[in-house]
Amino acid sequence: MTSLDTLISMLAKLPGVGPKSAQRIAYHLIGQKSDQAFNKMLGESIATIKEKVFPCPVCGQFTETSPCEICSDPTRDQSQLCIVEQPQDVTTILNSGAGYRGLFFVLGGAISPLDGIGPEDLHFGKLMKRIAEGHIKEVILATNPTDEGETTALYIGRLLKDHPEITVTRLARGLPYGGDIEYVDRNTLARSLERRIKL
Amino acid sequence: MTSLDTLISMLAKLPGVGPKSAQRIAYHLIGQKSDQAFNKMLGESIATIKEKVFPCPVCGQFTETSPCEICSDPTRDQSQLCIVEQPQDVTTILNSGAGYRGLFFVLGGAISPLDGIGPEDLHFGKLMKRIAEGHIKEVILATNPTDEGETTALYIGRLLKDHPEITVTRLARGLPYGGDIEYVDRNTLARSLERRIKL
Repeated sequence: MTSLDTLISMLAKLPGVGPKSAQRIAYHLIGQKSDQAFNKMLGESIATIKEKVFPCPVCGQFTETSPCEICSDPTRDQSQLCIVEQPQDVTTILNSGAGYRGLFFVLGGAISPLDGIGPEDLHFGKLMKRIAEGHIKEVILATNPTDEGETTALYIGRLLKDHPEITVTRLARGLPYGGDIEYVDRNTLARSLERRIKL
Repeated sequence: MTSLDTLISMLAKLPGVGPKSAQRIAYHLIGQKSDQAFNKMLGESIATIKEKVFPCPVCGQFTETSPCEICSDPTRDQSQLCIVEQPQDVTTILNSGAGYRGLFFVLGGAISPLDGIGPEDLHFGKLMKRIAEGHIKEVILATNPTDEGETTALYIGRLLKDHPEITVTRLARGLPYGGDIEYVDRNTLARSLERRIKL
């Protein structure tokens, strides 16, 4: 196998990169449009990223400082905790423009019996310890709008029954912004009709 | 900018990788599904690929040996020369299963006045020198089925008029295999009707 074939086969293992795109990327890297300095920087970044970036010991999002920037920012609302499945969901919520100023907690996934993921595989113990510290007044459940995310949210809701002082909320469900009713899936449409709101 | 943001912005510069896929790839690399050994290998491969791989001085396709494996293979048909636009077209033709056993020549692009690419920007001088050596009996024009590829093929046809001993052929044009006539573009359909063949 040549170096080029090896590179193509490794690129093809990345998510969303098929054999054709892997070939296109590899030829781009050896072509004139990509210079040696860029290749070196990208290559070193990939080789070392796992040594530099690690999950924040407090919230679980990826960080280079311990605790992460959000957890160590005293100006953020220490009484709001937004619970997400994956580290990347934190970035997505921060970039949404909603102006959320509270804290985060990453579960590490969702309960999914079909994939063999039970509550013991997620960070519920750590979550309940965090809750027990007593600063949190609202928990926002931002798990995915899927069966697994739904199950996980219900599970957390049950765990928090012993904390009546905490308000538990969920991200609203309904028609996505910019969508066309004609193309919205049945479940979403049924749910948004069922939970219709007054103008 | 954090290391993660830097990595994402570099990945997003690769062809076919948008900001969303770049994020997905970066999170994959720091997540549990990608191990440190793989990241190191991929990173080193990207950082060094341009030092290892270079255009073959004879045909122009990317290689690690000089001349490349194809050019230095005496069992290949030395009288057939397939002319392509880009180095990756060589691999595509070799992988097509057509069993082509001749040699290749990479032009480095196609004549495209709109993009400011004239004949002087492509390897026509080197091509004519190769032809002058006298081993070639057939030239197969495998430029792309586009206006630019067409123009380039006609240009080569004219250059080869001084060599009546050489047969010049072109890849056949017509309906693509597996296509549905309903969805074939107008040009392709018109051309395949015009150049219909006897059963």
